[in-house]
Amino acid sequence: MIIATPDDDFLYEKIAARFENQVKKGLLKPGDKLLSVRALSREQGISISTAYKAYVELENMGMIEARPKSGYYVKFSPARFSNSPDIKPPLKNTGQVSVTEMIAMVYQNMPEESVLKLSRAAPPLNLIPLAKLNRSMIEAIRKSPSGNSNYETLQGNIALRKQIAKNAFNWGGNITEEDVVTTQGCMEALIFCLRAVTEPGDTVAIESPTYFGIFNVMLSLNLKVLEIPVAPEIGLDIEYLEQAMKSVAIKACLFVTNFSNPVGSCMPDERKRQLVKLLAKKEIPLIEDDIYGEIYFGKIRPHTCKSFDTDGWVMLCSSVSKSLAPGYRVGWCIPGRFKEQVVNIKMMHTISSATPTQAAIALFFEAGRYDLHMRNLRRALYTQCLRYMQGIAGHFPPDTKISRPQGGYALWIELDKSINAFELYQAAMKHNISIAPGQIFSTDARFSNFIRISFGMPYDDVVDNSFKVLGQLVSELTG
Amino acid sequence: MIIATPDDDFLYEKIAARFENQVKKGLLKPGDKLLSVRALSREQGISISTAYKAYVELENMGMIEARPKSGYYVKFSPARFSNSPDIKPPLKNTGQVSVTEMIAMVYQNMPEESVLKLSRAAPPLNLIPLAKLNRSMIEAIRKSPSGNSNYETLQGNIALRKQIAKNAFNWGGNITEEDVVTTQGCMEALIFCLRAVTEPGDTVAIESPTYFGIFNVMLSLNLKVLEIPVAPEIGLDIEYLEQAMKSVAIKACLFVTNFSNPVGSCMPDERKRQLVKLLAKKEIPLIEDDIYGEIYFGKIRPHTCKSFDTDGWVMLCSSVSKSLAPGYRVGWCIPGRFKEQVVNIKMMHTISSATPTQAAIALFFEAGRYDLHMRNLRRALYTQCLRYMQGIAGHFPPDTKISRPQGGYALWIELDKSINAFELYQAAMKHNISIAPGQIFSTDARFSNFIRISFGMPYDDVVDNSFKVLGQLVSELTG
Repeated sequence: MIIATPDDDFLYEKIAARFENQVKKGLLKPGDKLLSVRALSREQGISISTAYKAYVELENMGMIEARPKSGYYVKFSPARFSNSPDIKPPLKNTGQVSVTEMIAMVYQNMPEESVLKLSRAAPPLNLIPLAKLNRSMIEAIRKSPSGNSNYETLQGNIALRKQIAKNAFNWGGNITEEDVVTTQGCMEALIFCLRAVTEPGDTVAIESPTYFGIFNVMLSLNLKVLEIPVAPEIGLDIEYLEQAMKSVAIKACLFVTNFSNPVGSCMPDERKRQLVKLLAKKEIPLIEDDIYGEIYFGKIRPHTCKSFDTDGWVMLCSSVSKSLAPGYRVGWCIPGRFKEQVVNIKMMHTISSATPTQAAIALFFEAGRYDLHMRNLRRALYTQCLRYMQGIAGHFPPDTKISRPQGGYALWIELDKSINAFELYQAAMKHNISIAPGQIFSTDARFSNFIRISFGMPYDDVVDNSFKVLGQLVSELTG
Repeated sequence: MIIATPDDDFLYEKIAARFENQVKKGLLKPGDKLLSVRALSREQGISISTAYKAYVELENMGMIEARPKSGYYVKFSPARFSNSPDIKPPLKNTGQVSVTEMIAMVYQNMPEESVLKLSRAAPPLNLIPLAKLNRSMIEAIRKSPSGNSNYETLQGNIALRKQIAKNAFNWGGNITEEDVVTTQGCMEALIFCLRAVTEPGDTVAIESPTYFGIFNVMLSLNLKVLEIPVAPEIGLDIEYLEQAMKSVAIKACLFVTNFSNPVGSCMPDERKRQLVKLLAKKEIPLIEDDIYGEIYFGKIRPHTCKSFDTDGWVMLCSSVSKSLAPGYRVGWCIPGRFKEQVVNIKMMHTISSATPTQAAIALFFEAGRYDLHMRNLRRALYTQCLRYMQGIAGHFPPDTKISRPQGGYALWIELDKSINAFELYQAAMKHNISIAPGQIFSTDARFSNFIRISFGMPYDDVVDNSFKVLGQLVSELTG
């Protein structure tokens, strides 16, 4: 054991590096409690202030966390990406702009026109079957004696719920319309489910990196997050979660099991079964965000955790926002044993969801228009995905690492470690190009040299040119 | 001063009655702190248990309230209704069914068909301009290059916001589209505004009696309510509020200033100005629910508090649910100085509101279809209101007291004191008639001999016959 000498200026860094090594080697496990600052100081013969600085450093790196009135705990093992096995959490914070502020900057203040929106993960207009969708809306209005102007039933449009139950066959579900509650998009479904099973102050396990909207939701409900790493091939690190559960009271989990955003990984069905079993045993609800489940590039639709759920602990949430019509705000959840709570929360929040949009989507499904559309959409998106990858590989510096998504809308791109992705975002916006900086996909600066690029738009000269510009900017910003 | 004798079995009732009298005479004012149980026992020479029982009795009557770790306070002066000056709060609780459970029973489990819904305050189908509304929806879809399938901007459809700003002229408003944020119905507007200005545990002043949906909202946000009486002629009792503010930390107010539900009273404009001034001085936000403002029976549209708001403390909320199309779930708020917070909360909750419904309502307004429709609707509802009043007067026992609404959808009816309105509701449901029992309009049993009847449906033989049945049931239940 090294006995530290008090005259060493960077002693705290060495102490921190030793802890980091222990975490990497698995000697210290997520959730392990660390010595108190005072005990560390005593044991290592260092000053209180040096011990404290070492912990602050580790905290900044995302390795450990301070829990109020409890002490320091190991938080996070190294991120695991296929192309970047040696990645370690960044050492520095990104500065003055908080994650929430960055999200607002990237998404709230985006001018509608002129900007190339590589940051938006939604189907582009040319892939939406507009004529058929419009026809469904018009038919639905004409069919309804009230022109769909009346309040919908609280649980949701019955025709739509039947179609959702029918489509559940594709992901291995065996449900009826009685199991479904409709919502205003998937976001509202997630919120209603979270509110049904958590109280403010509770801890919810989420993936890391994760969709920034999830942070907003957690913030808005006063929930704490515990970030569980995602690996490209197998998705969520269940073993990590299992370890974390030993020391952290997890009230619920919220995972994107199919084509997690931004990594694009898909949890193999066998691991889904394993996850469901683990959580049911611990009686921890799993809120499963399956919004990308239909956008698969393989031969078959992956299952959901819900399909392995025998005891009702899985609350599946989804919508048509990624497959058909984001503006319709038609979403739903299948809340299992928590259905009554979810329905009550819906009643308190909104009385009912909008009638015309629910009825139109129901009719679109009923007319058999959905399956054909989805086949076209998947083929187009997969092609676009490959072209985007080639474009980035061609225009970005050679050390750029690109994810290989199995579905969804996003490429997750690792740049040189010296790159600050938020600075890159700002530089790109001067060229009217909007990308999503890695900082907004985590609560700390872990992914500050990553960017997410959505391949929803057709690959054309404008996109190609934007990659030239971005590649150039990356080169310029590389230190 | 009476010296109580310990052998008196009903001593606590006498003590309670004395307090009640003091409140009625204004000797004890709302918000006044009462003696502690121990001090009361000492001062009156009664046992601790008798003192305690007296306070519990007063609490059950809604006269006082216990505040955790603080003691007992005077809560509520006698309700003031023009036709019932001597009303005092009921002495007994209604029993096993909570207010929340009653609301769920009355509204959630209502079979869609066969039941005559005298409990629903919404425009009936025959008063909705369906053909024109449908045409607006279809035109809006055809006009939009994306068929309104894309995400709407966060703040809301610009055309709709312009129309809302334009219509604000009618209520004395001077705003632009930049001041407006659209929502999923008025309920969501109220929730976003409440969340913008309160934290869980805060106290919000509301009217009494009030729309039961408000209780659900408060419950769902973990807010405490302070009930301020409403008088039929002048609406909210501002003097009562002013008194209450001296002793209770009110974080926000939520009032229906025009045609409060269920009483139907309208606050005179001069009193609105007074209220706005009072609250601005204390820097207390006023969430003004103006959902019924357009349904006036007089010659002119009453102003809103918002129209007197020079400092942005008033957050006006409304929707088209009572005037045009409840099922469209198109609402909005004009949140004054709290706009940024409201927009942020909206972003966290839902990304954006549905596009097609917003665009359709905007087009309906633009085409000038709204003004004509509203003239027809007001005339029809006023006629129905008068016919309903006559029907009730003809079929109910002679001691029945009926409110005289100046607008809105509801009659507030006081029955014999021996009537339990929830029992009446249950008896009526056996005849397939749904009414709203008074219990769901207050947090206590204060209005347990009141019912609310909505006159939204045309007065026909079915309605007339239902009044015969109800009148008969009231007679049978009168003790």
